[in-house]
Order: sequence, then C-alpha cells, then structure tokens
Amino acid sequence: MAKLYFRYAAMNAGKSTALLQVAHNYEERDQRVDLYTSALDVRSGYGRIASRLGVTREAEAYAGSTDFETIYTFRPAPACILIDEAQFLSEAQVIQLHRIAHLRGIPVICYGIRSDFRGDAFPGSRALLTLADDLEEMKTVCRCGRKATMNLRFDASGQQTLFGEQVEIGGEDRYEAVCARRFYTGTCSG
Amino acid sequence: MAKLYFRYAAMNAGKSTALLQVAHNYEERDQRVDLYTSALDVRSGYGRIASRLGVTREAEAYAGSTDFETIYTFRPAPACILIDEAQFLSEAQVIQLHRIAHLRGIPVICYGIRSDFRGDAFPGSRALLTLADDLEEMKTVCRCGRKATMNLRFDASGQQTLFGEQVEIGGEDRYEAVCARRFYTGTCSG
Amino acid sequence: MAKLYFRYAAMNAGKSTALLQVAHNYEERDQRVDLYTSALDVRSGYGRIASRLGVTREAEAYAGSTDFETIYTFRPAPACILIDEAQFLSEAQVIQLHRIAHLRGIPVICYGIRSDFRGDAFPGSRALLTLADDLEEMKTVCRCGRKATMNLRFDASGQQTLFGEQVEIGGEDRYEAVCARRFYTGTCSG
Amino acid sequence: MAKLYFRYAAMNAGKSTALLQVAHNYEERDQRVDLYTSALDVRSGYGRIASRLGVTREAEAYAGSTDFETIYTFRPAPACILIDEAQFLSEAQVIQLHRIAHLRGIPVICYGIRSDFRGDAFPGSRALLTLADDLEEMKTVCRCGRKATMNLRFDASGQQTLFGEQVEIGGEDRYEAVCARRFYTGTCSG
Repeated sequence: MAKLYFRYAAMNAGKSTALLQVAHNYEERDQRVDLYTSALDVRSGYGRIASRLGVTREAEAYAGSTDFETIYTFRPAPACILIDEAQFLSEAQVIQLHRIAHLRGIPVICYGIRSDFRGDAFPGSRALLTLADDLEEMKTVCRCGRKATMNLRFDASGQQTLFGEQVEIGGEDRYEAVCARRFYTGTCSG
Repeated sequence: MAKLYFRYAAMNAGKSTALLQVAHNYEERDQRVDLYTSALDVRSGYGRIASRLGVTREAEAYAGSTDFETIYTFRPAPACILIDEAQFLSEAQVIQLHRIAHLRGIPVICYGIRSDFRGDAFPGSRALLTLADDLEEMKTVCRCGRKATMNLRFDASGQQTLFGEQVEIGGEDRYEAVCARRFYTGTCSG
Repeated sequence: MAKLYFRYAAMNAGKSTALLQVAHNYEERDQRVDLYTSALDVRSGYGRIASRLGVTREAEAYAGSTDFETIYTFRPAPACILIDEAQFLSEAQVIQLHRIAHLRGIPVICYGIRSDFRGDAFPGSRALLTLADDLEEMKTVCRCGRKATMNLRFDASGQQTLFGEQVEIGGEDRYEAVCARRFYTGTCSG
Repeated sequence: MAKLYFRYAAMNAGKSTALLQVAHNYEERDQRVDLYTSALDVRSGYGRIASRLGVTREAEAYAGSTDFETIYTFRPAPACILIDEAQFLSEAQVIQLHRIAHLRGIPVICYGIRSDFRGDAFPGSRALLTLADDLEEMKTVCRCGRKATMNLRFDASGQQTLFGEQVEIGGEDRYEAVCARRFYTGTCSG
C-alpha cells in the first residue's frame, strides 16, 4: 500500500527543508532512505540538496537517462525514496516511480515546483499531478499575503517576462513566487 | 480572494452529485450559480447534469468555442461558477476561468476526471492541475478496497485495453475505476 | 490498512448527500455497507438519512448504548461503515470505531458537524478530531462568500444566541452556517 | 481573510523545522513574524524553538497568563504569528488567536501534537481542532511504515504505559510515534 506522493509548491516554499526533515525522521529510526536531486540543479553543487535554512546534504543526481526501475531491481528496497527538484523528471521516470510504489511497495515522495514563469507545468510536475496518489500543496505567500501559486521571472531590467527557456537554474534573484492576480496584472491590488 | 478549485476523481466517484449539492447550498441562500457541462457529454441529454443518485438538472453546454471571459464581461457575476465534466475544457478555457476567479472575484469550481484509460491526463485536467488554487481529490475505492486513482477501459471481449481514442462518451459498462496495482498488473493482489 | 475518516462541516454542507453517494458507489460494485445515523435525529423519521437534495434512505439508529465492537464481533464485516450525524457519538464509541478500523480492517467514514452554536465541539466531533486518521473538511460558504466554519443559532426574535442546550434537533430555520467574523461580530463586513 | 491554521502531528514529525522555514520565508521578503513557544517546554532552553535538523531560534514564551488579544491591541500587526508547542495553549487563548485572525486580519499558524500517550487531546489541540479554519496534518510514519497518528509513552522498564501526567516535558527517549494498531495492541503486525 505504498504511495507516490507529490508535494508541490511555488518557488522558495521550503521543499528541500521538508525533504531533509523526512529523511531525518526515517534515519532516526535506523531506516534507510535514498535521496535524489536533479543533475540539472547545480546551484549548491552537483548532487547536493541545500535548504535555505542552511542544512545541506549529498544526494544522487538523476538525469534523463536514469531508470529507477532498473536501480531497484538490483538495489535493496529503502524505507523511502525522496526526490528533490522533481519537476525535472521525465514522464517515463514518473511512471517508473509510480510502478515502484505500487509493485515494489516502496513509498516515493517527490518535491517540486508546479509551474514555470509562463504558467506552464514542468514535465515532471505534469506527470506527477496526473499520476501521484497524493497531491499535497506546500503553501507559501505572495508579498501581499495571498497564497503564492505562480512564479514570476524578471528580465535584466526587472520587468516580468513571459518568454525564454523553461529551465534556467540559478538566478533566484530573478524569480518571485506570487499570487495569481500579480501574475496576470503585475500588481496585487485592485 | 475567489479561487479556482479542481475537484478531481476517477470515474464514478460522485462528482455530479457533489456539484448539484453545492448549487443547492448557494440557492438555498438565494444566491445565483451558473452551471456548465460539456457539450461532448450527451449521456443524459445535451446540457444536462445527471447524478448517479438520481438527481438531474439543466446546465449550459460548453464547447471548444465557449469563451468564459467574454460571457462574464456581459453577464452579471454569479455567486459561483460550477463546471461538470471539466476534463474536456481546453487549456485556454482553464486560463479564462483562472482569470475570472482572480480578476473578477467569482469562485469557480470544476469537477472532472483526472486521467484517461491510458494513464494520460485529459487536456482540461492537465491545465487545472497546473493552475487551480485548490486541488481536492474526491476519493473512491477499487473493488479491492484500495483507493481507485486510475481508470480501465475494456474492449469488446472484456480485456483491459490501452489503445483507442481518449474520448468515447458513454459505455460506462466498459470502464472501471481501479487501484494503480490493478492498472499496471491486471490484478489487485500480489 | 483501513482508516477512520471524519468528514466534518458546518451545518447544511451536504454531508448526508455525500454519505449516500459513497454508499451507492460501494453497492454498485455489489459490496455491502452498513449505514448508521443518530437516534437523536428524528427530523426525517427515526433511523432515516435524508439528503437536502431529496434522496433518503433507511439506516440503523445508534444510541448511547450502541456498542459497535460487539456488533462487529457477531456480524460479518461490511466493505465500509458509514455514520451520519456522528457529532452525537460518545467518546467511547469513537474509540470503538477507531479500533474496528485498525483491528478488524473495516473502513469507517463518519460525517458530522464540528462545533455547536456556542463554538464548542460536539462530543463525537471532539473525539473524532482527536483520533481519526483522516480529517477532511466539507466546505460550505457564508452568505458573504467566505468559508462558513461556525454555526449560529437564533432565538425566537431572530437574534444570535450563545445560550441554551447543545442539542435541539430540528429548527434548521433557527440555524445558519457562517464565517468566523460573523460569528464573533454579528456582521460579515468591516 | 486571514485564517487560523493548525498543523498537527504525532511527536517528532518536524513541526519546529516547518515553523522555522515559514518564518524564514516571510523574513526573506522583509516581513516581520512573531514567534512563540510554550514556557513549559524548556528542553532547548526557555523561549527557544529547536528543530531536530539543528536549526534553533529565540521566541517569546507564552504561559497560561498570556493574553494574545491584549498584546496585539498594543503591538503593530506582524505579517504572521507562529506558535510552536501549541498543544499547551488554553481554550481561551485559542479563541483569542481565532479572533485575531478574523478581526485583525493577522494569519496565525499553530504547530502542535494532537493527542497524548493516552489518546486524549491536549487542551490547545482540542480547541484548535474545533476552531481552526484550516487543519493540516504533518505526516510521519510508524516503524512499520504505516502512518503514525498516536504517541506511546514507555515506563522505566520500557513498557507502554497509559497512566501518568499528561505533560512530562523532555524524556523523548520515552516516547514513540506509532500507528494506531501498535497503540492498541503493542504490535504493528497481525
């Protein structure tokens, strides 16, 4: 009865902290967890999960070629699989993780950003939103106090932009988690 | 502070009943609600919402050409917009509804099936899962007692099929809401 | 891995409708459900669950003396136990139902009102909020559009009252589900 | 439209970490938060919130005499009030916080343990479960992998005990978060 969980949020909600806390909870009971993050995310170094609260930890770096079902055919089952930056998973990888939860009985908890600065889903998030057994929002707020559900990207002049590549790791100072009203109108009021 | 809600489920969870109950709750307080269902779904007649509990009601039938923002530019705001069979919305229509909630302050509650018999999201569901402010699962169970999150389609010989058109309205006797284990293996046990 | 569920709401959210839909979902698959309602609630007749949408159905009427563990020592396990008006359960009965879910593997879904017109929990709700494995709010709205979480009682002259017996079945016209602001100040605005 | 939130869990789920992350999220945007913890909890020192991940921080220590409404009559409103060890709040204090959210528009987020080692609610948790606008479970697991919803206390000989004072701060080595089956039977299996 293991499940595939997707804990999604806008940027900077505290996803990595939450993941590291879950890992700690298992390990306190002497249970093994397997940690993954995206090879695309090298902000804190390759294969490293870093919380904005200051806690960091090594993890395995998954790439497009990573086949999770093959890994767990050979590796003994951990108590839990934890995946950070899960928005970068491919649809095929999400299906692998869904199958691992239901056919091998290993809980899989994925943390990721729901949508990009254009309002489009990331590929991993799209598949997780479709297949995960449990969708849980990690709430964060816009500067106006409303729930932040969207992500803005700013261009070099500080203006909101809706164009450009989906993935541009780093440059957090160029992103802001905002309410939908700000996303559509540029202002929280009115 | 109105929101766009997506209440998703596998087939036959009771989505239409829940929608009709919400409509009743508003109207008991003399508040107007606008009801929509998909023009594609003519199982109970065109523009008709029918609950498996036996309650039915007229609704407006939305099609691909329906522009919700134009409608509410001219029509006075209701207390709530309720949309059944929301899996058939286009991505553009979901964005319209998201804007209506946040820019016009009208709550919008969408009810729909999350994924099809192949495990793919429906277009409306994909956009709603990405943009809705509130994702709420309506739970139903597989015959084994586990949560049903997937939908099987059977072919004429009663075998699970993964091929065919996404939309084939009617033929409920050819569908079954099942747990993920049954979806992947054909059996709930093991 | 069965669970004890508590689906709570303010008054008139549609709890009985939701319960009857769940019963229907099980029975469509030829699975037996056991339905209970409180012997205190005779608005629709003794032992009768009535939805404001117009659907009604017989149920067993539980009283303070009902011992659910004894019942299921002798009666074959149903696929699910459904309890309406669960706010009137005693703490001991909630413990029985919690044990039935975890020791006998029967899912138990309780529907009830969270708090009374004074803002106090009902005894069954208090115990369910403490023990249930899954707390799920059934949302309804205040006349102002905010979420209704509290219940007002009016006296004969139409004024909000905070005094009187907790249980006074019937007289729905003397109750209203309201937002917390209205509960504390008598008005939704300001 | 501010709300009173209750994020409840069994012991050692990571409540303090989550609280400190929320504080960080606000402060990153230059918004002030007010932090409180119980004066009863001196495990990490009086008025100190300590996460098991290693992050600690000063907070104001609330006691039974603390009147939150008086505090915010005089003190400028923060962006958010965060309360750790909220299970030790009195019912009156929870009502104060509920009023502060709805009448002063300050969001209040309380973190606490739901029930004690006897399965009874703590006083603050009981009132929060009854009044909070938003109940959110922070999940943690039993050693068997099921959800942990109950807390065991062990006596000096390592046996589960159901007797004793509700509050006995410290001695975490004498507590364990467990599934309901283990709570009732002493074992997770069977």
